[in-house]
Amino acid sequence: MTYLSNDPAEFAGDALDGFCLLHADTVRRVPGGAVRRHRRPKVAVLPGGGSGHYPAFYGVIGPGLADGAVSGNLFTSPSAQDACSVALAADSGAGVVFSYGNYAGDVLNFGLATERLRAKGIRVENVVVTDDIASAPPDRAGERRGIAGDFTVFKVLGAAAEEGMDLDDVVRVGRKANAATRTIGTAFAGCTFPGADAPLFTVPDGQMGLGLGIHGEPGLRDVPRPSARELAEDFVRRLLDEKPAGAGERVAVLLNGLGSVKHEELLVLWTDVHRLLRESGHVLVHPEVGEIVTSLDMAGVSLTVTWLDDELERLWAAPAWTPAFRRGAIPETAGTVEEVAAEERAPRFAQATEESRQLAAALLDGLRAVRKALHEAESELGAIDAVAGDGDHGRGMARGIDAAEAAAAEAWHAGAGAGDCLIAAGDEWAARAGGTSGVLWGAGLRAAGEVIGGSGAVDANAVVSAFTERVRDLGGAEPGDKTLVDALEPFRRGLRESGDWAAAATAAEEAARATADLVPRKGRARPLAERSLGTPDPGAVSLALIARTVSGHLRERT
Amino acid sequence: MTYLSNDPAEFAGDALDGFCLLHADTVRRVPGGAVRRHRRPKVAVLPGGGSGHYPAFYGVIGPGLADGAVSGNLFTSPSAQDACSVALAADSGAGVVFSYGNYAGDVLNFGLATERLRAKGIRVENVVVTDDIASAPPDRAGERRGIAGDFTVFKVLGAAAEEGMDLDDVVRVGRKANAATRTIGTAFAGCTFPGADAPLFTVPDGQMGLGLGIHGEPGLRDVPRPSARELAEDFVRRLLDEKPAGAGERVAVLLNGLGSVKHEELLVLWTDVHRLLRESGHVLVHPEVGEIVTSLDMAGVSLTVTWLDDELERLWAAPAWTPAFRRGAIPETAGTVEEVAAEERAPRFAQATEESRQLAAALLDGLRAVRKALHEAESELGAIDAVAGDGDHGRGMARGIDAAEAAAAEAWHAGAGAGDCLIAAGDEWAARAGGTSGVLWGAGLRAAGEVIGGSGAVDANAVVSAFTERVRDLGGAEPGDKTLVDALEPFRRGLRESGDWAAAATAAEEAARATADLVPRKGRARPLAERSLGTPDPGAVSLALIARTVSGHLRERT
Repeated sequence: MTYLSNDPAEFAGDALDGFCLLHADTVRRVPGGAVRRHRRPKVAVLPGGGSGHYPAFYGVIGPGLADGAVSGNLFTSPSAQDACSVALAADSGAGVVFSYGNYAGDVLNFGLATERLRAKGIRVENVVVTDDIASAPPDRAGERRGIAGDFTVFKVLGAAAEEGMDLDDVVRVGRKANAATRTIGTAFAGCTFPGADAPLFTVPDGQMGLGLGIHGEPGLRDVPRPSARELAEDFVRRLLDEKPAGAGERVAVLLNGLGSVKHEELLVLWTDVHRLLRESGHVLVHPEVGEIVTSLDMAGVSLTVTWLDDELERLWAAPAWTPAFRRGAIPETAGTVEEVAAEERAPRFAQATEESRQLAAALLDGLRAVRKALHEAESELGAIDAVAGDGDHGRGMARGIDAAEAAAAEAWHAGAGAGDCLIAAGDEWAARAGGTSGVLWGAGLRAAGEVIGGSGAVDANAVVSAFTERVRDLGGAEPGDKTLVDALEPFRRGLRESGDWAAAATAAEEAARATADLVPRKGRARPLAERSLGTPDPGAVSLALIARTVSGHLRERT
Repeated sequence: MTYLSNDPAEFAGDALDGFCLLHADTVRRVPGGAVRRHRRPKVAVLPGGGSGHYPAFYGVIGPGLADGAVSGNLFTSPSAQDACSVALAADSGAGVVFSYGNYAGDVLNFGLATERLRAKGIRVENVVVTDDIASAPPDRAGERRGIAGDFTVFKVLGAAAEEGMDLDDVVRVGRKANAATRTIGTAFAGCTFPGADAPLFTVPDGQMGLGLGIHGEPGLRDVPRPSARELAEDFVRRLLDEKPAGAGERVAVLLNGLGSVKHEELLVLWTDVHRLLRESGHVLVHPEVGEIVTSLDMAGVSLTVTWLDDELERLWAAPAWTPAFRRGAIPETAGTVEEVAAEERAPRFAQATEESRQLAAALLDGLRAVRKALHEAESELGAIDAVAGDGDHGRGMARGIDAAEAAAAEAWHAGAGAGDCLIAAGDEWAARAGGTSGVLWGAGLRAAGEVIGGSGAVDANAVVSAFTERVRDLGGAEPGDKTLVDALEPFRRGLRESGDWAAAATAAEEAARATADLVPRKGRARPLAERSLGTPDPGAVSLALIARTVSGHLRERT
């Protein structure tokens, strides 16, 4: 249960505000996250991801560790705009490393930010963490999720940058750390979002969800809850089974509490973890027991082992001084460079014709109708998503349309025409909704807006095609992959063939329902794929809902 | 819920073992707690209390803070023997300060330890923390409980000792810190003991228990759960209402999570606490937000303000380097002195007569009968205690009799006579049961054993009188105070007048039931006193149960 909040929708931002107030001497708030107040000319290490995992990610900003953190909404990827804002504030000219767990939304948004920053001449690289052995088998290790092993990778990256390594070397050691890191986790009970009455997911009484992800993603299976000793044995055995080829006996170890498993329980568990790792011939180097990567109040625990070579050991053992993690002597913070203003966001609109203004007003009406429909469907969409995902789809769509409608209205009041209104709506949707679908909807709306441009009429087929092409291009999904594309393509085809929005919406609805028979093709762990069978894809359902809403809205207007 | 344990009864000790394994480079396990591995010739600051509050108490062992910690069972005072053991291991010749929250069991046990240590020529003082403004009104501030303000006091004591202050000065600044410290807390949900299925206490849905104690002791009242902002306003107003006379505007602040209220919630709350304290003209000096004094997985939060003068500010801001709390540069740990072996516990028994050996065997049988009865009654005694206390009475009695029976059996096998067996039983009861009743039963049994001595016969009146006198003398309770004395005195009188155990046991039972009409006289907050009306005193019920069991056991034997 989450007990304390003001506006639950603002929880993540409020927490970040509180953090930056508390650590105002060392940390500075910027749009999309926070950065160190004092910078040195060095590679900027920027961990990031959704909120709800404190001290990940902004809790480890400080000498020897992160130069800043990109912080999204709860369990939701930050937007590309967030990542750009933080990177611009943190870059000292030596380049930027984004590092984050392997989740589709994060990969997409940090990837987009990387493109945009490179276009500005900033050197940017990405180190993606894939430590969760429960999320895919060893032969598909690259598809694994990133969980508490994030911290080991961040620590190594931070120490490397602090040593003065250049961008290529920092990235090299970060990837080496990820390749040497394995984590196994378990959950006893799900977390509850601020303002919610029910947990995001549950674990049956007396059971534990072995391998369950830190957002409730499916793991290996539910098993009876073991004693601390049995759990230690299971964890250690699973990790040692995946010892990297050629690894030595020196290891960094992280016993991490997810939220409601308390310090003393972790210490009890540690007695056996310590013994078992020692008995298996390992030397424990600076082991850490505590809350490093949490999931709100989720009751769970994870064990991370990183096999160290000399270089990794030096970086793991190096000093660090951050709000949530302190080791060794405090590194000096001398040599600060002047602050760089965060990316400005001052929209300017081309002069619009009267026809374009009238079309813009009509589009705004349409956005309002869609907003109403998405809010009414929010919990249903969340429930569909919760079957195989993290249950945030409805919330993300609602946040996206809220932001989009507000941005379009602001643009309209500033004199923008139809195309610019839709572009503003798309950009804000992507920035505020977070997650994969937020990015896709935002980019799709922008593409649609670009097609409309300054004209006063809509070529529906051209607009829908531009939206579809952009979504497919960016998301990389094919029909049959169980994504919104499965409803989007039939909608585009229906509209082209019949010229009738209602008929096209019906085609989209039928196609969305039919996604229940599909299994996601890639990028997801097998248990998740199996679990989703029989449930339609929430993105496809959303798309059909929006198609139906727009169809109804157009009929009312004519 | 507590999910991870091996033997729940050994949870506290297992956690301490894990801690000492994890921090083996700086911390050393000793009977009853832990001490710094490296000592300097300085005053030893030793916080202590029951377990379940990590990082209190052993989490703050290290340079600039504690020299060791005395650690009892869960929510149960350590024994006097624990405190002596830790003090002997930590003392470097400059004296020892025990510091702990104001709970009857802690006051009693640390008081007994102080007597014993002084008898050995060691200088010992006590600094009792009384920061919880919800537990008694300002005119009875000395009766208040100690909660998260413990930490501020420990920090000041630790910095003072590290500076090289002598014992008197360390105690002086510690008491000054306590006098300048105010805490208000609240709970949203109770904690659950290892192995237990139900929480120790509950808070009604949508409500919060304002002022509820860290072991579930009654607070001010249940109120509807407010927003974070409203809670901040209420907390700050209550604390500022109790601003000490003459206090300035510079304050140390501690926003403490009790267990399941997570980091991000605390940070959200902090935004308003920070603002309100600033608006009221205060300057915040090194504020801390996090888990400092927890209560297992209790969902709750507390706010502590300490008004600082120059001396307190210097000590509060001084560096410290411990597993759970690190500030500033690391103090040097040079100048260690050689380790002192912990107090030895090698029992030696006088040669016993055959009659005394036979009596010892009979006593052992009696202890076994009492043990069986107490285990059967454990949950019932716990339920009675939970009405107005922390619900651990049944558990404490069970632990006590287990330890007593085992110690008596061990003594018997080592050739001890009746008196020595009972003395061994009493000492172990006091050491293992913890809490006030554990100390009283232990001391009472020891007194009874001393009366029996090497003889082979029991003068029942003399034994019961010795037991009664010792309990009354040590506990300080009068008849009518709603303690075990209310059943003990009628039992003693009944036995003396009738010479019949069964009749005396009946008198004890009637008297125990009659304690339901009493209200505790002193040393407890008013809401607690009111809450206990209508429920008998658990200690009196236990006494009557034991009297009845012994009576039945004697009848069977004759």
